[in-house]
Amino acid sequence: MSDYNKLTDELIDQIRTAANGHVLTGEDVSDDFSRDEMPIYGTSAPEAVVQPLTTEEVSAVMKICNDNRIAVTPRGAGTGLVGGAVPLYGGIVLDTTKMNKIIGYDLENLAVTVQPGVLFKDLADDCSRQGLLYPPDPGEKLACLGGNVSTNAGGMRAVKYGTTRDYVRAMTVVLPNGEITHFGSNVSKTSSGYSLINLMIGSEGTLGVITELTLKIVPAPKKIASLIIPFEDLEAAISTVPKIKMANLNPQALEFMEKEIVLSSERYIGKSVFPQKIDGVEAGAYLLVTFEAKDEDELNDLIDEASELVLEAGAIDVLIADTPSKMKDAWAARSSFLEAIMAETKLLDECDVVVPITHITEFLTFANATAKECDLTIKSFGHAGDGNLHIYECSNDLTEDVFKERVDAFFEKIYAKATEVGGQVSGEHGIGSGKIKYLRKSLGETNMQLMQGIKKVFDPNLILNPGKICYIPED
Amino acid sequence: MSDYNKLTDELIDQIRTAANGHVLTGEDVSDDFSRDEMPIYGTSAPEAVVQPLTTEEVSAVMKICNDNRIAVTPRGAGTGLVGGAVPLYGGIVLDTTKMNKIIGYDLENLAVTVQPGVLFKDLADDCSRQGLLYPPDPGEKLACLGGNVSTNAGGMRAVKYGTTRDYVRAMTVVLPNGEITHFGSNVSKTSSGYSLINLMIGSEGTLGVITELTLKIVPAPKKIASLIIPFEDLEAAISTVPKIKMANLNPQALEFMEKEIVLSSERYIGKSVFPQKIDGVEAGAYLLVTFEAKDEDELNDLIDEASELVLEAGAIDVLIADTPSKMKDAWAARSSFLEAIMAETKLLDECDVVVPITHITEFLTFANATAKECDLTIKSFGHAGDGNLHIYECSNDLTEDVFKERVDAFFEKIYAKATEVGGQVSGEHGIGSGKIKYLRKSLGETNMQLMQGIKKVFDPNLILNPGKICYIPED
Repeated sequence: MSDYNKLTDELIDQIRTAANGHVLTGEDVSDDFSRDEMPIYGTSAPEAVVQPLTTEEVSAVMKICNDNRIAVTPRGAGTGLVGGAVPLYGGIVLDTTKMNKIIGYDLENLAVTVQPGVLFKDLADDCSRQGLLYPPDPGEKLACLGGNVSTNAGGMRAVKYGTTRDYVRAMTVVLPNGEITHFGSNVSKTSSGYSLINLMIGSEGTLGVITELTLKIVPAPKKIASLIIPFEDLEAAISTVPKIKMANLNPQALEFMEKEIVLSSERYIGKSVFPQKIDGVEAGAYLLVTFEAKDEDELNDLIDEASELVLEAGAIDVLIADTPSKMKDAWAARSSFLEAIMAETKLLDECDVVVPITHITEFLTFANATAKECDLTIKSFGHAGDGNLHIYECSNDLTEDVFKERVDAFFEKIYAKATEVGGQVSGEHGIGSGKIKYLRKSLGETNMQLMQGIKKVFDPNLILNPGKICYIPED
Repeated sequence: MSDYNKLTDELIDQIRTAANGHVLTGEDVSDDFSRDEMPIYGTSAPEAVVQPLTTEEVSAVMKICNDNRIAVTPRGAGTGLVGGAVPLYGGIVLDTTKMNKIIGYDLENLAVTVQPGVLFKDLADDCSRQGLLYPPDPGEKLACLGGNVSTNAGGMRAVKYGTTRDYVRAMTVVLPNGEITHFGSNVSKTSSGYSLINLMIGSEGTLGVITELTLKIVPAPKKIASLIIPFEDLEAAISTVPKIKMANLNPQALEFMEKEIVLSSERYIGKSVFPQKIDGVEAGAYLLVTFEAKDEDELNDLIDEASELVLEAGAIDVLIADTPSKMKDAWAARSSFLEAIMAETKLLDECDVVVPITHITEFLTFANATAKECDLTIKSFGHAGDGNLHIYECSNDLTEDVFKERVDAFFEKIYAKATEVGGQVSGEHGIGSGKIKYLRKSLGETNMQLMQGIKKVFDPNLILNPGKICYIPED
């Protein structure tokens, strides 16, 4: 077991002073702080929750925790799916949701500075009102931007715009010892020493606490439209993806979904938009593609070219959603996949693997066969344009122990397969506590040791989010 | 002084065996291995040059050097400008230029795998022949890709496509102890632990030796054209830049140049393309902008829209280069800036600062005033679209000591100014040995110590490229 210290009344008083009173203890600490959205990885209560408003408060709290070896788990909205924000070793949860101000825009340099607790949705809406776009578009719109950066969140538009990593220009970071530092700056290129900012991105709160972010934004596209494209089966759908990419049609989003999950989602939202049978042909899978253009003409050209291409590649039909309300309908089912699954399922786990796009079909075929072998029900959807697959393991009748055993057997096999075809354990959800053992096998001991070494450089007392990514105290 | 060991005859024999004979010693070691393209930072001869052909040879050599504390300086084509490839502490230069094979393309995943010694130009040409584009476009076309990655090279197209960092998907790395490992994989997104690959990019051969690279490529744009846009003065030129960006014209390249440097370059190449006087108005500065489009119509629309915008913003004229030969002429002067300066100059140094684009004019005005104050001649050009400025300090009459003193006084002031306006020391050339002191002041001790800590994680015996970026043995 770890040797983290427990919070004494005296330490709580010190922390309360350091955080100007923004501390919850005892019954004021809601159960929410013990878990994220995937409680299968375990829940664990913090001894106190600190809700700082400023970088200075974070710094003062970190110094006390570092000096006294108190575990600190940074937390945004708690929407993670790998146990990343669960305070496995007690101590404090550092809840950043009260640091939720959009500090300001720099329109000439196309950047916005925010506190880490701003919700993705709030920034997206605020940008949109000004004709701007913050390009990342993770499925969970109610996550905090600090969490998005800490997991390098991807999302629908990653196929065109890249992931959160590509939009972080600068950040203020409080190191575990309380020092305040800055990584990056509001410039679009730099070769000025090791990229500490890229190390922070995706580090899931294990290296430092992000207290301010400067993010790159872009002018919003003038016209967009989506296509719902039914295919007879998944293979036909997926094999079309490289053709779309090679034709330089540059879609903003390129999602695939199996029929099963679409039906379950449409049941959940109570609305049916995806066609199930076209001229007697049964749809087995879909692509959902969004294009953007500078005007109507360019958009129509893109739609025509794409329609011709996919029909030639075997699509049964092409449905065009070219008004805001049609677009909303087209994406409603896709946006509710996770909620729909959760609503129908008692025990849930998920795999967020990413593979080269040429291996998607092979991988999904393997996953389906392996699930059968392991006697598990799975549901799949994902970002076809970038090979990031979300495979949900679902059960309503197994005991938790049996479910976990089967999922582990399933994961061992599919992560090994992912590594074999040149993929990685997580495309956008991160490692948290839930995926460490698979990461270790995928990357190998050498890389894990490099990560552990880096962890110790930033956090010599190992107080920050222990039990995540690469560092397990009892190892 | 450092306590690196010298190569004994016995060690040279061991290394020769490890590298299958690919070792140069004594008179076979050309003076080129003692320097890069900016010898003002000092020259220093290696005791031997190893020219490996394989990852395994690199590994075997590194193991010997690590066990015996022999300094190792990785080197590509030696085209660096900050002393990065100079073996300041003797030992061996690890010359990767014989590892120069394009291993293969993966067209469906849009990637190419290369050895690190492939020249940028060779990959660019090879891609071009296949209708593909490797987007980075550093000014020095004869650099090796390993060097491009190690400095996160930028170049002309960074304004649209980003820098080398954005095109590195995976790499094979030999760690200082000889271990062979792999970072990244051929997928376009990942959240699988700390981004070790991003740490390697821009680390200038101080953390590990890159022996294979998988790079992202894109379909080549179908149509391109450049505009030469003369303005009365630099301020007028630069203040147009944010307008072009906000109009979402998305130029592929967006360069600025003062008249003085254009004249010097046109003298050097013996051809004049940039207009000096238009309807009686003298041009004082230029923008050179490239647009790309999917067809002739779209290109003409872009040219029309851009021309209107820049003329309204104060341009004196717009010259269109829309054929390959006109494009070549338009870019010939820009491509020869450095050679032209070198041909005319005895003592030369350079500053590769990057500032937010809204601060370019203010910064250049400050630099010009500071140069006058320091009694230094400077010549400026750069990437207006991304705020990366190349300011050359030139002298034909000062002694080297006086020149260095004045340049240092100049650098102290302009790097401080760059930091003040939110810029960074290097936009694309790196830190090497020449810029360490300015980096330290710009980033602060905390960040330098984090870098030094990371250096020790990768290279506990500190043998790899000592005296660069963050680690100076005698410090």
